[in-house]
Amino acid sequence: MRATVHVRLKRSVLDPQGQAIHQAVRTLGYEGIREIRQGKYFEIELEEGLSPERARALLERLAHEVLANPVLEEYWVEIEGDAR
Amino acid sequence: MRATVHVRLKRSVLDPQGQAIHQAVRTLGYEGIREIRQGKYFEIELEEGLSPERARALLERLAHEVLANPVLEEYWVEIEGDAR
Repeated sequence: MRATVHVRLKRSVLDPQGQAIHQAVRTLGYEGIREIRQGKYFEIELEEGLSPERARALLERLAHEVLANPVLEEYWVEIEGDAR
Repeated sequence: MRATVHVRLKRSVLDPQGQAIHQAVRTLGYEGIREIRQGKYFEIELEEGLSPERARALLERLAHEVLANPVLEEYWVEIEGDAR
């Protein structure tokens, strides 16, 4: 079973990395871009036999405890074939 | 108009960062996870008035020239409301 976890800074948190990229892109002459914010994501391959419910619970815990910093970041879990 | 660009290492390229996270997660006692690979993504806000075609061309160029290293990485562009 495959899943992804996306992690990004909360909207209220400044994203200097995204701002630096935006600035560089402007310097390079790209026009039409208002804002760039950078996030990360994880592609996770799970053992077969996990139910979608258990997989989601596992990944929510993993995201909250390991992959994201919940003070500054928000995250969401997507499991292939389990639209929720 | 909002868009996202995802960038990840090609499958054939080793992902030591993902492996380190996987190892840490195993040490913490998480079970049921076979593999973790880490990628990055960019949330991009475009000026209003760009057509989806021009926006896509702009973002493909930006991804290829700036956001990704096409030797090692692959990328894909998604534009909100323009399923392709």
